[in-house]
Amino acid sequence: MNAVSPAGGDSQNHRTAQSAEDLRQEIRALGVAARSASRALASSTTEQRNSALLKAAELLDGRRAALAQANRQDLAFAAERELDTALVDRLELTPARIDAMLDGLRQVAALPDPVGAIRDLATRPSGIRVGKMRVPLGVIGIIYESRPNVTADAASLCLKSGNATILRGGSEALNSNRVIAEAMTEAIASVGLDGAAVQLVPTRDRAAVGALLAMDDLVDVVIPRGGKGLIERIVNEARVPVIKHLDGNCHVYIDKGADLSMAESIALNAKTQRYGTCNTMESLLVHSDEAEAMLPRLAEAYAEHQVELRACERSCVFLPGAVPAAEDDWSAEYLGPILAIRVVDSLDQAIEHINRYGSGHTDAIITRDYLRSQRFLREVDSSSVIINASTRFADGFEYGLGAEIGISTDKLHARGPVGLEGLTTEKYIVLGEGQIRC
Amino acid sequence: MNAVSPAGGDSQNHRTAQSAEDLRQEIRALGVAARSASRALASSTTEQRNSALLKAAELLDGRRAALAQANRQDLAFAAERELDTALVDRLELTPARIDAMLDGLRQVAALPDPVGAIRDLATRPSGIRVGKMRVPLGVIGIIYESRPNVTADAASLCLKSGNATILRGGSEALNSNRVIAEAMTEAIASVGLDGAAVQLVPTRDRAAVGALLAMDDLVDVVIPRGGKGLIERIVNEARVPVIKHLDGNCHVYIDKGADLSMAESIALNAKTQRYGTCNTMESLLVHSDEAEAMLPRLAEAYAEHQVELRACERSCVFLPGAVPAAEDDWSAEYLGPILAIRVVDSLDQAIEHINRYGSGHTDAIITRDYLRSQRFLREVDSSSVIINASTRFADGFEYGLGAEIGISTDKLHARGPVGLEGLTTEKYIVLGEGQIRC
Repeated sequence: MNAVSPAGGDSQNHRTAQSAEDLRQEIRALGVAARSASRALASSTTEQRNSALLKAAELLDGRRAALAQANRQDLAFAAERELDTALVDRLELTPARIDAMLDGLRQVAALPDPVGAIRDLATRPSGIRVGKMRVPLGVIGIIYESRPNVTADAASLCLKSGNATILRGGSEALNSNRVIAEAMTEAIASVGLDGAAVQLVPTRDRAAVGALLAMDDLVDVVIPRGGKGLIERIVNEARVPVIKHLDGNCHVYIDKGADLSMAESIALNAKTQRYGTCNTMESLLVHSDEAEAMLPRLAEAYAEHQVELRACERSCVFLPGAVPAAEDDWSAEYLGPILAIRVVDSLDQAIEHINRYGSGHTDAIITRDYLRSQRFLREVDSSSVIINASTRFADGFEYGLGAEIGISTDKLHARGPVGLEGLTTEKYIVLGEGQIRC
Repeated sequence: MNAVSPAGGDSQNHRTAQSAEDLRQEIRALGVAARSASRALASSTTEQRNSALLKAAELLDGRRAALAQANRQDLAFAAERELDTALVDRLELTPARIDAMLDGLRQVAALPDPVGAIRDLATRPSGIRVGKMRVPLGVIGIIYESRPNVTADAASLCLKSGNATILRGGSEALNSNRVIAEAMTEAIASVGLDGAAVQLVPTRDRAAVGALLAMDDLVDVVIPRGGKGLIERIVNEARVPVIKHLDGNCHVYIDKGADLSMAESIALNAKTQRYGTCNTMESLLVHSDEAEAMLPRLAEAYAEHQVELRACERSCVFLPGAVPAAEDDWSAEYLGPILAIRVVDSLDQAIEHINRYGSGHTDAIITRDYLRSQRFLREVDSSSVIINASTRFADGFEYGLGAEIGISTDKLHARGPVGLEGLTTEKYIVLGEGQIRC
């Protein structure tokens, strides 16, 4: 294992045209190798892919010392650069995090294989039978930030679903990522498949990302995992399709006649169970008929959690400690102990508010009314629409996907939590017995 | 009905910054109106949308004279510009074409409504029930060339599936398109929905397309319908996701031991039933064991149709009249009576050739061997993979979709023929009874 020196390879501001072209060629070579490996994966068995995942866990288990050593180099690099503490925390591979990573590999091996399923095979008047077969996407690029465990998480989901992966982790995690990716490559080769099914971009040079995003002939989709800044940069630059996850500005609407203790319990859970997650509630809407009963009660509950309330004029009446909300508050993703609150006069106003200010991530209604629950379900244009439960349920594990590579706020292809199925596509298959078209 | 004067509005090379901004605002206003109309469609009933489609057919039936008059103006415009005859032919709305257009509207009304279907609703350990609900995409932009009947075809499929549409037809067809779009708008308003659910870009200015493609906040997807040049321009420029259809370089592979008379019949049909369609075979691969028996027989059949054969060195031996194939022939989409022919030594070589040179559209194997048929099905990476039938079957009507807005060669979202389902997406729904996350 060659460690990358902390200073190496990322101070290339004076890159020559030649070295830029060399880098482009180097990244294209990864793409060509990935495409070729993805062809081999198309004829692989479930058994082979599962064995490779278990083997990768076994190899990494035997290389804990090397992994810890590589991670210390990365932490030293981060310290030297004075990177921020949250990033350094995510970078560290504690023994518990290594255990979780190995468990993750074994869990993905145990999931059902999505590839090869055929549905809706029907005979047409011409006599041909037509159906859809689930197949891998092909080559998936993963661009992520400091957490090295993403290397194993993302690559294992891609491998399980029959895809080749090109990984571009944070430059501060390069040594750790290299140990993990090498184990996966070896494990894949050990079951007779092409080890290039998992490849790591071997340089810290930022221009490598641009080269990767331009290869729409060799990469089928890019999945960025990280902050909003990273994702926006990638979306703007990519020629390759991107499965993206932008904001999570999630709402809970407490309907007229809602069960107030259910409403309190859900509104509290959706805000305070965890602050930093994308499915945390950021805005609460309350029907005007329930404001007087509901808001003081909620204010007390939130006060125990030190949640700052930013309230519309009408809700301020019942929330003496609240800050008046500004227009920006309706669009904010606080990711912290702050909540915007607004009183509305009808379901229509609530839906209009959510579709206008929301991010299309996850929104919930608390109601006892059947017809209004069904209208909310139909008319709220979000990736998850929830009746009488916490927004915090919106994730792949809670939904039963077994694993999750992200939560998509796109409408095309994959919407909401993306599991193995989101890493595949369907092609049409036609089974004939000599039919020709008249 | 105001006719657009033939010279009007498309000679704006000296556009000022102000007029460019005015145009951008004008197109954005269409987007804002479409978004609002799409919200209204989200709460519309199947009955309302079907009635609107039938009403549009009725209105257009009563406006045949106005439509013919508008079409004559468009034809005069085209003649004045000396546009090419194929384009002028597609532009003309004969009485038979108007009949077909009205039938199309009624047929779309009769199709099942894809919107609202819920699948896979399952109870999770937490007690919540999670499933997926099919919903409209929202706002769809259609960019197309000269055929005015596309206005009715595309808008009716979008409306049926609950989407608002912004139509940008060919500038030569603007008068005809306007009569059709106005009838649809009136019909939609007549059932109590927002007429802005169907809008036509009211200018010939090309910059309008750029403005439309930039509105990723207001348009959910753009579907171009037209030649490769149009589609490539749109893909390069669009910030909005595009459902695209590029080349159809389709293959038939005649396997070792194939039924030769079945092979002949399919190879002939796939090439000669129609030349200009994207699912027409452009390259034929023949296993070396069958070359001597198959090729002379095929040469005779193709000669009757004056199909020019461009053959590899090994197939030339059995095809005295053939032209030697160049490397370019393997990638060509001839759209005419030309066929590339290559002898291969194995299924692997055939699959490798198809995945390397093909366009991922539609490819077929003619075989009697079960295991090889299954490998072909799995390993050929195309939107339609066919066993023992003609490539010409790859379309929405033959597949039972009821209608088709195009054939996608993308892998994400919609792959292969795109019908009503391809114009929708699925969101997660969660039905709870007070659950919170622990």
